[in-house]
Amino acid sequence: MLQVIFLGTAGSLPTPDRSLPAILVNREGDLLLFDCGEGTQRQMMIARTGMMRLSHIFLTHLHADHILGIPGLLETMAFQGRENPLVIAGPPRTARMVSILNSLGCCTRDFEVRAMEMRPGDAVRMNGYTVTAIATQHSVPSLGYMLLEDMRPGRFNKERAIELGVPVGPMFGRLQKGEIVEIDGRVVRPEDVLGAPRPGRKIVYSGDTRPTAEIEEASRNADLLIHDGALADDMLEWAVETKHTTAGEAAALAARAGVRRLVLTHISSRYSEDTTPLLNDARKVFPETLIASDLMRIDVPLRDG
Amino acid sequence: MLQVIFLGTAGSLPTPDRSLPAILVNREGDLLLFDCGEGTQRQMMIARTGMMRLSHIFLTHLHADHILGIPGLLETMAFQGRENPLVIAGPPRTARMVSILNSLGCCTRDFEVRAMEMRPGDAVRMNGYTVTAIATQHSVPSLGYMLLEDMRPGRFNKERAIELGVPVGPMFGRLQKGEIVEIDGRVVRPEDVLGAPRPGRKIVYSGDTRPTAEIEEASRNADLLIHDGALADDMLEWAVETKHTTAGEAAALAARAGVRRLVLTHISSRYSEDTTPLLNDARKVFPETLIASDLMRIDVPLRDG
Repeated sequence: MLQVIFLGTAGSLPTPDRSLPAILVNREGDLLLFDCGEGTQRQMMIARTGMMRLSHIFLTHLHADHILGIPGLLETMAFQGRENPLVIAGPPRTARMVSILNSLGCCTRDFEVRAMEMRPGDAVRMNGYTVTAIATQHSVPSLGYMLLEDMRPGRFNKERAIELGVPVGPMFGRLQKGEIVEIDGRVVRPEDVLGAPRPGRKIVYSGDTRPTAEIEEASRNADLLIHDGALADDMLEWAVETKHTTAGEAAALAARAGVRRLVLTHISSRYSEDTTPLLNDARKVFPETLIASDLMRIDVPLRDG
Repeated sequence: MLQVIFLGTAGSLPTPDRSLPAILVNREGDLLLFDCGEGTQRQMMIARTGMMRLSHIFLTHLHADHILGIPGLLETMAFQGRENPLVIAGPPRTARMVSILNSLGCCTRDFEVRAMEMRPGDAVRMNGYTVTAIATQHSVPSLGYMLLEDMRPGRFNKERAIELGVPVGPMFGRLQKGEIVEIDGRVVRPEDVLGAPRPGRKIVYSGDTRPTAEIEEASRNADLLIHDGALADDMLEWAVETKHTTAGEAAALAARAGVRRLVLTHISSRYSEDTTPLLNDARKVFPETLIASDLMRIDVPLRDG
């Protein structure tokens, strides 16, 4: 399972329909948060995501709208008896911010909160995947993130294995896991019966940013790109000034990178009545675009089932 | 107009249906917040209360669930160009807390945020009413608040004024405002034509607390008492330990104080499916009880229309 749950999709200001930025990724039960705007803990409750399996919060930058959900979330997890450590990763000054946010709690806390300041290219190794920081360009130090699953073994060619005399049974599994097996003194190697290794799934999240070459490169063939699409194309000048991206710019980047699907988020409150200007600008360039909405879930399937 | 809008009615943990504690009072367009839990700014947007006329935030205590909405609210008001100063009042250490919360913002702010540490009996003078701090008893320094309107002049006796020879016209208004008027050298005094002064309206908010004699005294004849009613009576021991109040205890206090109406708030998440245990415990003792719910509005009318 690899599912993205959009907990908050607003820009700098919340609206009645959009909570402040937060995206939860559930990979085989591991929960990762990307940004944690005010209200995130309640959105997690509404979405029934659970909290205890949350291991990391990755911050794209330290603007208030992306971080103010942290102290309440820590408090609630402490209240509920959490013991597992939590990592809060982000750009420079994340450690200072975590220390301030820590000082706001009142509960005694039985779990460690570890701040981790990352630079582009730094990666956090998880069980079966990595999360890598990517250079972005906002009005303060900022990062995007790429979640990339490990390569998976190639497809097992059962007919070929039988031809090579491998008996149906446990040896099939050992070959699939990459082990060499011996049958009557003869060796069969995994590469004899496995196709080419298959890529894992890839999700990229830009955070708040102008389009960057690094995000484009990281997004090459991504299954899902979640990009700042705060403004319609007719607001390009304002997007440049405030270091955001227009819907059309994000779509063009998605098209160049050959992503499978684009979701625009950080939707400015000026589109709270109607997001069709954003959707139109994007789909002209890249039809596989969605506008994020709060509590929307996107499953990212394996390409070969 | 004197209206109370319950923005957040949860206990320490939010639920899908209840945001963290915050109560807005709108008196003739003045907006006052009592507590400001995480999510308050978005609840204000959902309730369409506006923000710019907010002049004071009164904190009952500094637990995280009552204060974490402040930095985001300040940020949004800054973003929207607020210039009017804002007072954040509360128990000791409020100034330190405000200074920490202030450090979380990223916007340049064009308005002053003034911290005001209050002790029981201290009062803030507003236009036509006062807000007075009341002693309460929680696990950290805490206060309740009483909003009391000024006495209003007695009812104007028009027939009596005409008997006394006052001509129908501007002199009526001058007498109503408390001025002495002269008719052909003869003096008519306000007290000749006005009934006894009439009390203004009174609202009391307990914050998180055990029942206290001071809250009971302040609530004497109140139009509205908003009291901690976190737990049902069968949880009395836990209420004592955590320094909260059971529904029946709050109702008994309301009955002794002769309040007009009681609203229980800070509802524990254990009643998120069903609040009838609270309502039953309270109404047995004081029938005019309501359980607060998010976005509920209560108008407090003048008793004599």
